[in-house]
Formats: sequence, C-alpha cells, structure tokens
Amino acid sequence: MRDFDLHKYRKERSTLIDRALERYLGASPQAGTIHKAMRYGLFSGGKRLRPILMLASGELFGANVKMLLPFAAAMEMIHSYSMIHDDLPALDDDDFRRGRPTVHKAFGEGIALLAGDALLTEAFHVMTEPDLARSVDSKLTLKLIHEISRAAGIGGMAGGQAADLEAEEGEADIATVEYIHVRKTGALILASVRVGAIVGGAPAKEFRRLNRYGELFGLAFQIADDIMDMTDHSANGREMKKATYPAVVGITAAKGRAGELLRQCLKELEAFDKQAEPLRAIARAVIEPAVENQPRTRKRSAPSKNDELKADR
Amino acid sequence: MRDFDLHKYRKERSTLIDRALERYLGASPQAGTIHKAMRYGLFSGGKRLRPILMLASGELFGANVKMLLPFAAAMEMIHSYSMIHDDLPALDDDDFRRGRPTVHKAFGEGIALLAGDALLTEAFHVMTEPDLARSVDSKLTLKLIHEISRAAGIGGMAGGQAADLEAEEGEADIATVEYIHVRKTGALILASVRVGAIVGGAPAKEFRRLNRYGELFGLAFQIADDIMDMTDHSANGREMKKATYPAVVGITAAKGRAGELLRQCLKELEAFDKQAEPLRAIARAVIEPAVENQPRTRKRSAPSKNDELKADR
Repeated sequence: MRDFDLHKYRKERSTLIDRALERYLGASPQAGTIHKAMRYGLFSGGKRLRPILMLASGELFGANVKMLLPFAAAMEMIHSYSMIHDDLPALDDDDFRRGRPTVHKAFGEGIALLAGDALLTEAFHVMTEPDLARSVDSKLTLKLIHEISRAAGIGGMAGGQAADLEAEEGEADIATVEYIHVRKTGALILASVRVGAIVGGAPAKEFRRLNRYGELFGLAFQIADDIMDMTDHSANGREMKKATYPAVVGITAAKGRAGELLRQCLKELEAFDKQAEPLRAIARAVIEPAVENQPRTRKRSAPSKNDELKADR
Repeated sequence: MRDFDLHKYRKERSTLIDRALERYLGASPQAGTIHKAMRYGLFSGGKRLRPILMLASGELFGANVKMLLPFAAAMEMIHSYSMIHDDLPALDDDDFRRGRPTVHKAFGEGIALLAGDALLTEAFHVMTEPDLARSVDSKLTLKLIHEISRAAGIGGMAGGQAADLEAEEGEADIATVEYIHVRKTGALILASVRVGAIVGGAPAKEFRRLNRYGELFGLAFQIADDIMDMTDHSANGREMKKATYPAVVGITAAKGRAGELLRQCLKELEAFDKQAEPLRAIARAVIEPAVENQPRTRKRSAPSKNDELKADR
C-alpha cells in the first residue's frame, strides 16, 4: 500500500465534509453578521483533520459514510468554535489564523464570542436532525452525542483549555503538560476515531486498538503542533509562555517523544490490512514534519501536498 | 384556585432542579477552577424560571417530573452559560450580577469564557446520559435536544444576542426590538414550555395554546425586564443604549404592552383547570411588578416572597 494517495483521499473526504457543512450552514443572502462570522471561521482553510479521521476510522469497519457525515460535520463545527474562542483576547489573543485576521479581528469580539457559542450549539442541532433518525438508530445517536459532548466538555477540551490557561501562570512538569494535551486537543481527536469505530461496529478488540491509536496520535499531534510553533515566528508572547512539551523537555526530547508516539500508534494498526492505510498516512503526514522539522522529500508526492495536513490546530 | 401558593411551588420545584444540577455538576474537592466557575455561575441565586416553567408545563399534562429533570437541568445550564458570556466585556461588560461579582470578575475572563462553553457542552452531555434512555424514548429525547438546541442557537438565543449587539449601534424600531426579544430571551422560555408539553403528551390543540402562552410570556418577560432596568441604577452605560421596548416607545407604552401580553397569555390558559395555576401564577408574578412598578400589596403573600420571581434575566 505504498501507493496510497493521501492527497486524493483527503480531497475527496474534505469535499464530502464541506458539502455537509454547507448543507447545515449554507450561505444565505438575508443571514445576519453572526452567520457570516460562523462561516468565516468554519470555511477558513481548515484541514478537516477530525472529521476525516472519523470517516477513515468508520470506513475501516465498513461504516456508511453518509450516516457518519452529520457527526463529522458537527465535530468540525465544535473544533471551529474552539478555535474562534481560543483566539479571543481572553485566551490566546491571536490576530491571525492561517494568514487571515481571526474572527474577532474581522467581526469584533462580541460577534466572535456569539459565533463560537452558536457553532457549538448548532453542532448538537445537526446531530439531532429528524432526517438522521431514519438512517441511524436513535439510541446509537444518543451514545455518539454523549461521547462527543464528553470530549468537548469539562473532562475534555474545555477542561483542558482551562488547565492550560492556569498552567501558564506556574511551572508545569511533564505530567501536567500531558494531562493538558490529552484533554485540550487529544479528546476531540480520540472521540473522532471512536465515533467512526462505533458507527462501523468495530469488534471489542479492534475497537481497543483504534482507541489506543486515537490516544497516542492525539498526544503526538499536540507535541508536533508545539514543535512547529517553536520555529514559527508568528507565535505571540502568550503562546510562548504556554506549558508545552518542547518548552519543558527541550525540542530534541520533544521530537523524540513525538516520533515514539507515532511509532506506537502505527503499531496499533499493524493488525489491520490496507483498509487502515488512511489512518496510517494521516498520522505520518501530521507528525513526521515536526519530528524531521525539515522540508519533506518523498519520491512520489511533492512536499507541498501533504504538508497541508501537518500539525496545526 | 386563589389559594395557590406560588412561593411553596417555586421552592419545591427549585429544590428538585437544584438537586438534579448537583447530581450533574456536584462539588468535588479535586475539581479545577473551571468547575468552580461553572458552579459559581450556576448556583448564584438564579430563580430557575425556565426549568420551573418546563416542569409546570409538563405537570399540566401529567408528565413524569423525574423524566423531565435532566432537560430542566440542561435548560438551566444553558441559561447560566448565556448569562456568563453576556456579562463578559465583549458583550454587556457587567461587573455584578445579583449583587455578586460576575464570573469573569471572580475568576478572570479566560476561565469565564471556558466555564460558559463547558456549561453549554455539559447540558448536552446531561441530556444524553445513558440512564435517561431507560425512562425516556430515545427518539423523543433526540426531538427534545433538537428543540432546545434550536432555541439556543443561531435562530434563537445566540442569533438574538447578535442582533441585539448590532442594534446597539443603530436606531432600532419596534419590529426590530420584538425580533430581538423573541430570539434573545423568548426562545429559551418558549422551548421550556414546549418541552414540558411534549413530554406530557399534550394533544395538538392544547399544545398550540401552551405554545402561544410561551411566546406571549417570553416577549412580556423581556419587556418587563427592560422596564425594571430603566429604574435600576446599577444598569451600566452599554445597557442603557440597548434596543428595548421602553427606550423605543417610552415607559408608559411599554407597561401597557407588557400588561396586554400578560392578559393574552393568561387567556390561552383559560381552557385549562386549576392544573394550569402554576403557569398563571408565574406569568403574573414575573410581569405584574413591572406593569405596576410599585411595591406589590397582596393580602395573602408578603411582597418579598414572589418578588423573587420578578423579571430579571
């Protein structure tokens, strides 16, 4: 399966996800500013990593992609809300994201706050669309919403963000850094993988492997993200003070840890055949650039292509 | 039913709701700052108007209160999150709520933002608890979550808040003010009444009456709130500039409108017997103080008692 084309896979899945997002949050001439701000945040060149992971995990077990799309779209809406709020002056105070002004810079802080709130709320509206009940068992839908809300809430992303904010003020050790990472970024990534596997009806043993893959990859993702940030001159003062792996153990040890986590998460996929190639390729494409931290030179794919997926929250 | 004791009813229902909230968001010695901030916002002397309305509406049709409690608790969590975010400098910039420092004044803006996010998220976690599936049909639960998320999202509260924010900058006419009110505050109140009636299995005709009651009361509530604010010296400059009924038509016309809406919403309840007395008493207790705008002098109840319920978002 060295011939697996991640670029093509990504593009096809992104198109499905963006089409679903357009269906739920379509452009409307009479829509208000909040709607524009939500779309600005949602359609801003995001890599759709979480929903693509969800689809890839589901496809591994033969899940119906159409059934997964509302959950994949909701996951991206939740990720997008978290970016909008994260960029606000009260948290990271970032003026730019992916080369564009952040939502609050473009629309004002009040609208950005409300656009984030609305994206989070609409994610749950999407997952409870009456249409969905025709194709997905209602008990299963409730289970998935429970899973996703746990990952986004106090025991997951929101709790991790709060721990991160507090860690800025003190000296963090590596256990604290991992505690934060597992929640702040790891939880949504893990939930994406789990939701796919649940909908695909993964047997218990395979499910545990996917779960481990999600945990290991989620942690590796954040370490890779922080390694990239260390060399990124756009990072602001507040970000520099954050409790990160490279800040605590140094960049070389952080690269070593990310590389080790990548190996471990790929190992969990060894029991699977070529159907797991998307999950393998995604992990490599996201983590390897940070571990190598130099322009990637692969024979078959131009470096620019899969760089699109490299760690970047 | 002149003998109906609203104070006792309120107290009993509040106890049930607070107990449910404690179950979902209990005090925990090792919980972090975000958890403390969520509890600070949630247990701050709120009147539990929305969940009480939900229970009262459900009881009218014989709904099982125990079945309703997770939805009632979730509704209060959503209301509480909206207050925390509303008080932030990016929106109303309020330093005090009910005589106490607001969440961001007590915990900082970052934690307040995240505590609001987490309350909203946990509301959906509560409504999808596996326990619930044993007593409530899963399809019905999905329908109720859909209803509540619509009321809280872009077509409801969040959208209304955004419209409100934009109206501050321009001259608002009465149609705009009503558009804002119906969404900003009306939507959650209406959804509370509707969820109760849905769970109670209200027949179509009665359901329409309850729906009208919810719409009329929701609008009257916001007008009453704004009338009270006009005479409240703690209102800050930003609030004074808001698009409100009394600001646009004057305080006398606003009182007239609130009184008329109260009469209309009570009329919708005429078809019901004494079982609707809680809904009648709540509407009167909330709206009359603003319409009269003078100390209430009723024979049987000390003015202080039901004043606790008077309009106050």
